[in-house]
Amino acid sequence: MKAEIIAVGTELLMGEILNSNSRDIARELYNLGIDVYHQSVVGDNLNRVSKELETAFERADLVITTGGLGPTRDDLTKEAAAHFLKRDMILDEESIKHLEDFFGSRGLPLNEGNKRQAYFPEGAKIIPNENGTAPACIIEFDEKVLVILPGPPREVIPLMEKYIIPYLEKRTGKVFISDIINISGIGEGHMEEKIMDIIEAQENPTVAPYAKEHGLTLRVTASASTEQETRLLLEPVVKKICDRLGMDVYAIGDTTLEAVVASLLIEQNLSISVAESCSGGLLAGRLINYPGISKVFKEGFITYSNESKINTLGVDSKILSNYGAVSEEVAKQMAKGAANRAKSDVALSITGIAGPDGGTDEKPVGLVYIGLYLLGEVKVMKMDSWGSRDNVRRRAVSQALDMLRRELQIRASK
Amino acid sequence: MKAEIIAVGTELLMGEILNSNSRDIARELYNLGIDVYHQSVVGDNLNRVSKELETAFERADLVITTGGLGPTRDDLTKEAAAHFLKRDMILDEESIKHLEDFFGSRGLPLNEGNKRQAYFPEGAKIIPNENGTAPACIIEFDEKVLVILPGPPREVIPLMEKYIIPYLEKRTGKVFISDIINISGIGEGHMEEKIMDIIEAQENPTVAPYAKEHGLTLRVTASASTEQETRLLLEPVVKKICDRLGMDVYAIGDTTLEAVVASLLIEQNLSISVAESCSGGLLAGRLINYPGISKVFKEGFITYSNESKINTLGVDSKILSNYGAVSEEVAKQMAKGAANRAKSDVALSITGIAGPDGGTDEKPVGLVYIGLYLLGEVKVMKMDSWGSRDNVRRRAVSQALDMLRRELQIRASK
Repeated sequence: MKAEIIAVGTELLMGEILNSNSRDIARELYNLGIDVYHQSVVGDNLNRVSKELETAFERADLVITTGGLGPTRDDLTKEAAAHFLKRDMILDEESIKHLEDFFGSRGLPLNEGNKRQAYFPEGAKIIPNENGTAPACIIEFDEKVLVILPGPPREVIPLMEKYIIPYLEKRTGKVFISDIINISGIGEGHMEEKIMDIIEAQENPTVAPYAKEHGLTLRVTASASTEQETRLLLEPVVKKICDRLGMDVYAIGDTTLEAVVASLLIEQNLSISVAESCSGGLLAGRLINYPGISKVFKEGFITYSNESKINTLGVDSKILSNYGAVSEEVAKQMAKGAANRAKSDVALSITGIAGPDGGTDEKPVGLVYIGLYLLGEVKVMKMDSWGSRDNVRRRAVSQALDMLRRELQIRASK
Repeated sequence: MKAEIIAVGTELLMGEILNSNSRDIARELYNLGIDVYHQSVVGDNLNRVSKELETAFERADLVITTGGLGPTRDDLTKEAAAHFLKRDMILDEESIKHLEDFFGSRGLPLNEGNKRQAYFPEGAKIIPNENGTAPACIIEFDEKVLVILPGPPREVIPLMEKYIIPYLEKRTGKVFISDIINISGIGEGHMEEKIMDIIEAQENPTVAPYAKEHGLTLRVTASASTEQETRLLLEPVVKKICDRLGMDVYAIGDTTLEAVVASLLIEQNLSISVAESCSGGLLAGRLINYPGISKVFKEGFITYSNESKINTLGVDSKILSNYGAVSEEVAKQMAKGAANRAKSDVALSITGIAGPDGGTDEKPVGLVYIGLYLLGEVKVMKMDSWGSRDNVRRRAVSQALDMLRRELQIRASK
């Protein structure tokens, strides 16, 4: 099945808002194995929307529109669809009743604009919208399908999940299952190299990167007629990728690196503290994202100045002046010092040159040392990062979490 | 002038990433008084991109494409443009030299894919890209203009600002000037209410929200034939909005709340420390975004546990057990304790219930206390926040920075 997405709205054309609906709908269709070849944005204009539908259906079997179902005179996606399909607009009794109840219960009159929200092109299957006043609808014609959705994302996402995806699954006659593989401590290019042949050979299951705020993620999606058959297709490919990437895979499923680290600490009954220089709180910030962290998180020290490294963490002032604040030795002493002060089993430290200034030939911007104290032993990792101040800091935090994650997973497997 | 935007990239069609480029480009065109009637997304396919250009130029005088300039074989937006325009692809000597320098300085060989980035449709005006390896270009033909931009937003935004907007300004024969008004400590709805009449009466200058990672921003843009005339149109409207919003405006121009706070601290020669509980490092993280912060930032204490509040900050254990960690009294003692320990002139503290668990009827999720110590005096602000754990924490950080900003601005004005 080939699909297109049409977002209707002048506010999109003017760049006032991000078109997150097209992204969200496209992702769902991709997971259903439905190819999206084209997306477009048009204004709230009857002829332009109607013309866009015509062009889209020349290329596709499924078109999903979003937006233009509001109560104002601008909103006319359904009218444009009726015009394109040469059908009349018909009042849906149940929708009007629902609107009367909705407005009545708030003591508001039902105005003409809201009444228009209960009219649909003849033959449309009405889809109730529990999060707004504009119902959606599905129109089938000539083996093709037009799905008309409202504009607000908080209405679109539930409508997709509850009604449109099940409808499309039924239409495709298939069951879809996805697994998410979470990867860290390795660059995107390096990861792709390791599994390029699997990505290239993919068909069913499909393997695709899945964007997340931090780190790399792959989504593997299989489809077959039954759940059992689908799992039989999915599992060997997930296993093959995990075998290939080894310890670079930190978890399967919808989770985060900090959640995995926190869970490992809790399981192994290890308390943690952190000492941060250039990352200045972002490492603690990531760990404390995890709601259950209070069980193991002892304390964090943001020792950005040399003075605070000496006074709070007990870093040796001679070592500081001999090696500089950004050095293996200082990273080591920071980690030890944090563990010592907070009386924690584990401590992570970060010291580096985040830029944009402060770099030298010997110690360029992007140089970061990460210290890891674990029950008496200290390790240090050197990192050469790049990009903006923000990028250097964020990468250092992910790298520190990953360094600890690997140690804890090795410990767990022993 | 009528414009269209074409985003090229299979990752957009698959819903992997948000199409922020189309939004950003659309907004810039809107500010230039250029109407965007259509946006589209197509995959990296020569025939489809070429066909899309043809359709777009049937309706528009200006088409801006973004994406498909990378070094891989998939990337062929320029080839599709050459195909559509029936022009050859020509090597640009300057671009190839730039690429050789770029890769040479990193000790990397220039591969075939990267060499392709130096070829352009014949007659193209090459635009250097300071943030990536793919130069942009402008092609003029039959009174029409095709602008070809790369895909990464951090390359697109500077290219638009530095080259494309000035080029289009020149073409429209007008001077455009924008002022950015940065607002904090007030909700979007409340702000709109205060200036709704100004927004509604707008025409020239236009007043539009401008999305930023933190806080509210308005962009006011005027246009006229000369710079002087433009400023005469712009300034009274900016002044009117600033008068209306008063201290809710924290700065005019391209800056951040943390940069304003940091500059005020440096100007007033005040050192700062922070003590964080639920925000767990995010406040220090925001402050340390500002590269010059080392002049005034003494130390940060992430005292998530009661133990660390007592041991490190000297919070009274009786006060902790009587009032609870999330209380006015503890926020006060945390701020005092941080200033005391770090010997700083200013200290900010945050303690709250970020959720999702841990709330009670008396102290619900979202309850946050912010303490501000300033040269011996302590103030506390109570905040009722909402939403996810992440949202509660981020809002608390912005609120804390805003509380300090207001104090420092009042101090500066005395």
